[in-house]
Amino acid sequence: MKVDGVPYRSIWLGDDGESVDVIDQTRLPFEFEIRKLRTLDDACVAIRDMVVRGAPLIGATAAYGLYLALRDDAGDDALRGARESLLATRPTAVNLRWALDRMQSVVGELAPAERAAAALDEANAIADEDVETNQAIGRHGLELIRAAAARKPAGEPVNILTHCNAGWLATVDWGTATAPIYFAHDEGIPVHVWVDETRPRNQGGLTAWELGHHGVPHTYIVDNVGGHLMQRGMVDLCLVGSDRTTRRGDVCNKIGTYLKALAAHDNGVPFYVCLPSSTIDWTTRDGVGEIPIEQRAGDEVSSLPATANAASTRIRLTPDSTPTFNIAFDVTPARLVSGLVTERAVVAATESELGASFADLVESETVGTTDPS
Amino acid sequence: MKVDGVPYRSIWLGDDGESVDVIDQTRLPFEFEIRKLRTLDDACVAIRDMVVRGAPLIGATAAYGLYLALRDDAGDDALRGARESLLATRPTAVNLRWALDRMQSVVGELAPAERAAAALDEANAIADEDVETNQAIGRHGLELIRAAAARKPAGEPVNILTHCNAGWLATVDWGTATAPIYFAHDEGIPVHVWVDETRPRNQGGLTAWELGHHGVPHTYIVDNVGGHLMQRGMVDLCLVGSDRTTRRGDVCNKIGTYLKALAAHDNGVPFYVCLPSSTIDWTTRDGVGEIPIEQRAGDEVSSLPATANAASTRIRLTPDSTPTFNIAFDVTPARLVSGLVTERAVVAATESELGASFADLVESETVGTTDPS
Repeated sequence: MKVDGVPYRSIWLGDDGESVDVIDQTRLPFEFEIRKLRTLDDACVAIRDMVVRGAPLIGATAAYGLYLALRDDAGDDALRGARESLLATRPTAVNLRWALDRMQSVVGELAPAERAAAALDEANAIADEDVETNQAIGRHGLELIRAAAARKPAGEPVNILTHCNAGWLATVDWGTATAPIYFAHDEGIPVHVWVDETRPRNQGGLTAWELGHHGVPHTYIVDNVGGHLMQRGMVDLCLVGSDRTTRRGDVCNKIGTYLKALAAHDNGVPFYVCLPSSTIDWTTRDGVGEIPIEQRAGDEVSSLPATANAASTRIRLTPDSTPTFNIAFDVTPARLVSGLVTERAVVAATESELGASFADLVESETVGTTDPS
Repeated sequence: MKVDGVPYRSIWLGDDGESVDVIDQTRLPFEFEIRKLRTLDDACVAIRDMVVRGAPLIGATAAYGLYLALRDDAGDDALRGARESLLATRPTAVNLRWALDRMQSVVGELAPAERAAAALDEANAIADEDVETNQAIGRHGLELIRAAAARKPAGEPVNILTHCNAGWLATVDWGTATAPIYFAHDEGIPVHVWVDETRPRNQGGLTAWELGHHGVPHTYIVDNVGGHLMQRGMVDLCLVGSDRTTRRGDVCNKIGTYLKALAAHDNGVPFYVCLPSSTIDWTTRDGVGEIPIEQRAGDEVSSLPATANAASTRIRLTPDSTPTFNIAFDVTPARLVSGLVTERAVVAATESELGASFADLVESETVGTTDPS
């Protein structure tokens, strides 16, 4: 999507062909800076420190990271080590494992001398397919927005609430939850987005930045507000992303998503989750019981960066000795999900419907993951 | 309660008898400063700018504010004007009106020369009674904590989640939601408090500060976390306060309370609201439809004070042009409330039970408010 009128993706091969370039998301929404990744370690740090974030973009970055590793050393040990290093960066988003499995299946059988080039091709393919996938999600989600618009007086904006950033910055382009919004806006359907702040890392600022650059009307609210809005009829539709969805449709997403799903359910507001099928973990069924949830450093809660430069200055929010607990994701049970907006269709959040829509993946992914080689 | 070992109330008559002294809560939890109120205007500013906040303390401050006004001018016009000025400071907490009605009923019939002294006596009585009321709430709420402790293995702490600050800083002393916690802690029942940050004004910092000074174990969390905790059995009991509760038990409280009540309900966690009967608005029934909800300035959402001195420096959280919406309270429907912990008893959140427990108030307050002069 555009930044100051110039089209960007969130990750791309640098002009010199030597680096993989990303937008440094720790500096947004205040500074727009490009970070060049040149080594496996650069890629690992970028994922771990959330220079890049969002399940699909984490997957794409891991794919490019494997390419950077193989460019330096394409031996079997290096391949295995790179895979392990990348897998260890963040625990919850399943796209990371999905992308690395896919890379492994392509390069694992090749002679070392052929691996780097094949890895680059495959990483590029993953990135390109992510864009197409999100466009497909956008087309399917657009129907939901059209339906919501049809339920309102002509010309009144469809009010959409979103949590965290499942925007183009969280993917390679278009976003998951935002793709339907951009499609609707571009088509002239009036939309207005309630942007959840999403403490502790305030990814709502990323969403506001994105929407602002694309001209989509929006309002930034603290995470406490959504229930009130839904109670008062001020939300027509919730659209969120997912970091991992189980085969029965339990949705793991940014902490606080579950609370919004409860409010949507309590007020009859449709609550849809937008995700590529690469986010579905066919090896898990019970989201609360089976998905590992990342716990992050407490200083993300007790202080905030005073400028976009997180490393230099932080302002304190709590008394000095106050203990904190910083859990990054929660699980929304399938019963609270109106549907899953995937690249193939809008699918009910049930094991049977998901299985019917993705019969090919259920088989291959389940097998692929139990024997990841 | 104690601050660095010294007992304080949140409001008191100054040593010189000339001022009403309060703790400046805009500077907490980082600086402990006393602010002296000497005029009606000082009192109005203190309430409006949240130097003092919390429904019971707003009521007590309004009572003292009327005294300060009458000390300057005790004529009928001044009395009427002072009442109107104080009523206009904040719209949601009903204790403000309750305290002013009570002051009016005492001083309205007196000759002007007698009014100031009577107003001071009545304001002191309101403050003293608030302390007794909260102690009674503490005794009743303690039974709930005892019951929760009995359901757990011996020695394991009772995990209590609270939202905003319904602590001693929100009242004259002890607090509403915190009184049971202080009672339990002082009695040796192990408790641990999950402290919601409570964006946008982060009153969780006040609660953490209070609990820390009293030695109560606690953990500060962002507002998104509570649902996850309840889903995982990490919360035994929710205790919150209220700014206004309707005669059928709908609870208006700090924005975000409704989301926690939904999560408690979804996970079978008891959700109790601690409040003095002065917080019950017998003239309203439907909380969502009838209670005026305060909307505050957007910069509370888009920026944060960089030090405790809110006036000097604020750091920006959103892109410059981002619109915000800042609504201060929400309404939790009675169906989500396990019970109301009042100074008389723990009462079911129903019109019949509330009416039975407060038959005397239903009558007098309803009549009193329809004819407030």
